[in-house]
Amino acid sequence: MDLKVVADRALLPDEAPIAMASPAEPRSPTPHLAIDIGGSLIKLVYYSRNSDWLPEDNKIWSSKESLGVSNGESSHPLSEGRLHFAKFETSKINDCIEFIRSKQLHVGGQHHEVPSKNKIIIKATGGGAFKFTDLFKEKLGIVLDKEDEMDCLVAGANFLLKAVQREAFIYMDGQKEFVQIDHKDLYPYLLVNIGSGVSMIKVDGDGKFERVSGTSVGGGTFWGLGKLLTKCQSFDELLELSHVGNNRVIDMLVGDIYGGTDYSKIGLSSTNIASSFGKAISIDKELEDYKPEDISRSLLRMISNNIGQIAYLNALRYGLKRIFFGGFFIRSHAYTMDTISVGVQYWSKGEAQAMFLRHEGFLGALGAFTSFERHGFDDLMVHQLAQPSPRRESCSEGMQHSAPHWDANEEKKIDCNVFTS
Amino acid sequence: MDLKVVADRALLPDEAPIAMASPAEPRSPTPHLAIDIGGSLIKLVYYSRNSDWLPEDNKIWSSKESLGVSNGESSHPLSEGRLHFAKFETSKINDCIEFIRSKQLHVGGQHHEVPSKNKIIIKATGGGAFKFTDLFKEKLGIVLDKEDEMDCLVAGANFLLKAVQREAFIYMDGQKEFVQIDHKDLYPYLLVNIGSGVSMIKVDGDGKFERVSGTSVGGGTFWGLGKLLTKCQSFDELLELSHVGNNRVIDMLVGDIYGGTDYSKIGLSSTNIASSFGKAISIDKELEDYKPEDISRSLLRMISNNIGQIAYLNALRYGLKRIFFGGFFIRSHAYTMDTISVGVQYWSKGEAQAMFLRHEGFLGALGAFTSFERHGFDDLMVHQLAQPSPRRESCSEGMQHSAPHWDANEEKKIDCNVFTS
Repeated sequence: MDLKVVADRALLPDEAPIAMASPAEPRSPTPHLAIDIGGSLIKLVYYSRNSDWLPEDNKIWSSKESLGVSNGESSHPLSEGRLHFAKFETSKINDCIEFIRSKQLHVGGQHHEVPSKNKIIIKATGGGAFKFTDLFKEKLGIVLDKEDEMDCLVAGANFLLKAVQREAFIYMDGQKEFVQIDHKDLYPYLLVNIGSGVSMIKVDGDGKFERVSGTSVGGGTFWGLGKLLTKCQSFDELLELSHVGNNRVIDMLVGDIYGGTDYSKIGLSSTNIASSFGKAISIDKELEDYKPEDISRSLLRMISNNIGQIAYLNALRYGLKRIFFGGFFIRSHAYTMDTISVGVQYWSKGEAQAMFLRHEGFLGALGAFTSFERHGFDDLMVHQLAQPSPRRESCSEGMQHSAPHWDANEEKKIDCNVFTS
Repeated sequence: MDLKVVADRALLPDEAPIAMASPAEPRSPTPHLAIDIGGSLIKLVYYSRNSDWLPEDNKIWSSKESLGVSNGESSHPLSEGRLHFAKFETSKINDCIEFIRSKQLHVGGQHHEVPSKNKIIIKATGGGAFKFTDLFKEKLGIVLDKEDEMDCLVAGANFLLKAVQREAFIYMDGQKEFVQIDHKDLYPYLLVNIGSGVSMIKVDGDGKFERVSGTSVGGGTFWGLGKLLTKCQSFDELLELSHVGNNRVIDMLVGDIYGGTDYSKIGLSSTNIASSFGKAISIDKELEDYKPEDISRSLLRMISNNIGQIAYLNALRYGLKRIFFGGFFIRSHAYTMDTISVGVQYWSKGEAQAMFLRHEGFLGALGAFTSFERHGFDDLMVHQLAQPSPRRESCSEGMQHSAPHWDANEEKKIDCNVFTS
């Protein structure tokens, strides 16, 4: 039983194989939808059959047995489909509900592959799963089957790290390098999930974890402060602005204080930021005198660096070698990853390295999706699969100077093709 | 040789004794002025004779020998004077220069007690001591004798902690409680100096220290972001606004995400801040729709909590029991101290406690002043003195709901009376 996720090539050009089993005849409803309702974003993962997929594409896959993760259910017949990813702003939850309705996910998907007499199960996680229970019941007639938020984040991260090849990568100097994780040496690690706020979770195994720290200075801070300061209309617009910004216009650098020189005695170079937004105290300038792009870049640098620092200090505290950064704040954004990476490297004096996840924003939703399996849906399983193409250990890319524009009113999914065999 | 510092009673109602020796006949110029030029503030400490002081006030002092810090120079005759403290915004450095000129500090003070043939020595520290060297030479004809910034911060803190009774205190629930520090058990400690940026220094003894960490999210960030967001015209105006603000209007709380409930499984109550400024992502509101006082309070809470968290993680890393917070960001501001205290308590699960210093903003300037002694001015020494009045271990105060208004154009000193005997 193989499941292959091929990301939308416009967004994520690499193939990432995972595996999912499906039953010959549905003894219980095939899982269709998992939803992660955060403070500012709703993330969906849903499954659909895809009969258009060419059978010969299967040939590039090696068998799951080669990876030693067989559970003896390989006799299940083939089926084909896709895992789709979509997101909406939480403030536009009605758009999300309309999206679910339009895809008929609340009644088992467009193919109606599930007998209507069977109950449709919608897995839900995130704080909003509690807050919006009544709304989903009222509008779609469905009951959200709630899963713990931290459980799902960890399950989603473990799933990606174990099931998806070339999922984790380091990012430095505009270069992305994939890291092959030895599954037997995965734990323990620190998972830093940057949503509206930031959770830092020490992960010791499947379902074994502790939320050891966090910070309220996260994605919601970037977008909230950024919206107040720039009048940008979306997170992505703000993020894109930062590409062309110059934080030195607003941040007070060591050199600004020291007359252009370093403070080398304590290891501070003239270009180190001494005080984020420290130049904005100038009596001669008001908000209107600063460019939105410079403000955006200062904000991004401040928040990314701060998260990197606190993450590193926690990794150090618990002796964790690896720090994985996930959550929708990052969005594969080059400058964000670069700042976090430099922050971790700077504070650890080169002893620690930040790692990122390609499917960073959907940890919770993926974890909720995999919870179908964890909670007795033994007709479905998700496990590691083989590599579809010659393995590339690294993939270098130039600085990414455009971010995807995701309008919350439209489906802008990362399209994933799911093979089961 | 006794030196007594009595703070301006309007600002700091407590007496704080320190000690300084002065020569019978000046063999070298009496030190008059030390200056700490930071990114946003300039701090002055200067000495003046005060012949109006009543001799009988000396009687309340016990001898220095009782504290075991005699250096055998007690035969020096008495003199009386004051240590004065003043501050200016760095952007208004010309006001500072005019102030120095008006007090004739560049020529030895108003009493001209130093023979004019002797060179006047001005000790200077902070990054701006380098940047503004030429300006002081040009405008006042004086050469700034530079001292290392970290050296001075540590020397200033050590001086206060050893020489001034009831200098250090904890602050919780609106209560200030002075802590008596055993001088033999002072080291090691973590000094967190919150200026425009934040330095975290592990102090192991006199002149023995290492800057182990810091953050760019400091006082300059509060004032810089606050100025952009509120149009306040001074740091203190912004700080005072925070008294009446409500951060819950702008911060996204755990309860906002979880429909009003806690996330008790991981120890987050509904009132914990999940995302600083997270509610400002609302599409319905713009900057003008938020009250400046609410913005100020959110900012203050975000920055204070962040500093408390990073400080605690560093104290933990180095096994430091005590964390002293200094720097002009705090300004004895109740809510700031409360947030830092709660932050340290929260993250340490009650195992660590934040401590504050009454003369918090002048660590660098005081350290530069005491460097007269460290660098061979053996006519002058500063050491611990006795307690002038019945010792009070603790002093409870209500929440402080007004901050001192210090206009940078005026001298708003903490007036300190200096006795030498």
